[in-house]
Amino acid sequence: MNPKPLILVVNDDGYEAKGLQAMVDLAKEFGEVVVVAPDTVRSAMGHAITMNVPLHIHHYKTEDGVEYWRTNGTPVDCVKLGQKVVLRGKEVDLVLSGINHGSNSSVSVIYSGTMGAAIEASFDTKAIGLSVQDYSPNADFTAAQHYGRKIIKAVLENGIPEHVCLNVNVPKLPLADIKGVRITCQTDGYWYEDMEKRTDPYGRDYYWLTGYLVNTDTREDACETVLKKGYVSIQPVHYDLTAYKAMKDLKYLEEDVE
Amino acid sequence: MNPKPLILVVNDDGYEAKGLQAMVDLAKEFGEVVVVAPDTVRSAMGHAITMNVPLHIHHYKTEDGVEYWRTNGTPVDCVKLGQKVVLRGKEVDLVLSGINHGSNSSVSVIYSGTMGAAIEASFDTKAIGLSVQDYSPNADFTAAQHYGRKIIKAVLENGIPEHVCLNVNVPKLPLADIKGVRITCQTDGYWYEDMEKRTDPYGRDYYWLTGYLVNTDTREDACETVLKKGYVSIQPVHYDLTAYKAMKDLKYLEEDVE
Repeated sequence: MNPKPLILVVNDDGYEAKGLQAMVDLAKEFGEVVVVAPDTVRSAMGHAITMNVPLHIHHYKTEDGVEYWRTNGTPVDCVKLGQKVVLRGKEVDLVLSGINHGSNSSVSVIYSGTMGAAIEASFDTKAIGLSVQDYSPNADFTAAQHYGRKIIKAVLENGIPEHVCLNVNVPKLPLADIKGVRITCQTDGYWYEDMEKRTDPYGRDYYWLTGYLVNTDTREDACETVLKKGYVSIQPVHYDLTAYKAMKDLKYLEEDVE
Repeated sequence: MNPKPLILVVNDDGYEAKGLQAMVDLAKEFGEVVVVAPDTVRSAMGHAITMNVPLHIHHYKTEDGVEYWRTNGTPVDCVKLGQKVVLRGKEVDLVLSGINHGSNSSVSVIYSGTMGAAIEASFDTKAIGLSVQDYSPNADFTAAQHYGRKIIKAVLENGIPEHVCLNVNVPKLPLADIKGVRITCQTDGYWYEDMEKRTDPYGRDYYWLTGYLVNTDTREDACETVLKKGYVSIQPVHYDLTAYKAMKDLKYLEEDVE
């Protein structure tokens, strides 16, 4: 680790989001900060990367020693560009993704650009995705900064298990009403969705995805349960998607399929 | 399950890809087939969904009873549009994603649009992502169809554990040289990457992502190992990203962070 930690801040709500500035203000308390953010809103980009168009990156301001860059890339591209272009040859000590306007609990983690970026960073370094359960552009980040500060401090001092990143979700509550933090597992559930059909002024149909999360999990330490009780949820996340339990059930295929 | 299985075919290489037609030809052997494919190449889109522009969907041909649709959406959107618009009110028995031009073994699974779509489908139904280790537009799908056929048959007859989908990868070998199938776990590894810098005719810099997969896994049943030995890899995949082992290591945060 560098004597003064080198911190890369990224997000998926884009370089103008209030949450990005809230994360930068927090990160500055801990070390040298460089920002690489999408040049537009890139929410729900999951782990997408850009392969079919070239990537551009532009320096756009420097304030209080913080370098800001924006790019046409995805949140995951922001991590790669930060590491391979902006901070080329330097060791990044921590990647902070967010602060996201909106929850990334339960299965939202697989759609989330915020968490896509944190997972990407976890191949090389410590990483935290930080989100609040409030989608509004003017979301209040006071509680997220308070708990983010404590969690960043702990992570810089004690580390995180290798190739694990943290998915931190903060309930939409005044700081005083939050009860503390809980280590959680991903709530099992799904998005109950529909495609809302509309017709444009030229008579062509188009669709908007709509939906709400359905929680099918009864575990006490599932993230949604903990958030509903007024705790901050810290879900350790790993990129191994193997369904290990199912490997045994499917073993018969090795004999069956020739 | 419907008396004649209803099969939704999607992909990430786009509606004109040879691999899509190879999958349709295979699917037709098993039931009624409907295709929803991206209207352009949407590789490496991971689990991205479209929320910031409306979705369009166009019927483009019907041959041998197969309905073909293309959309500006991502591979995951293709699944949602197939279920909620094209096949609204019908029970989909199986979602087939691919056949993908290129491998989705090891950590490529998290970047893969093919597997994003299969994972999305696994919330509701049985799903298989099928890929060959050959990126060329004219890849040979003979072996993928042969093994795909056997695996689809087994899955329709015996099912898959709930909320699990299959990530099937076929080595780039003549059918006769393939030794069989193995149930595998996701090879631990990472993409060693760089950003190749170029300058456009107007003097502006741009970047292309380049890289190769680094295998850090020594397990005998890891997907990369099995593929190198000449077997088809069948990795059962689940969308729970929780690092369960790390939950204990991080439990101290519940006391530490107030």
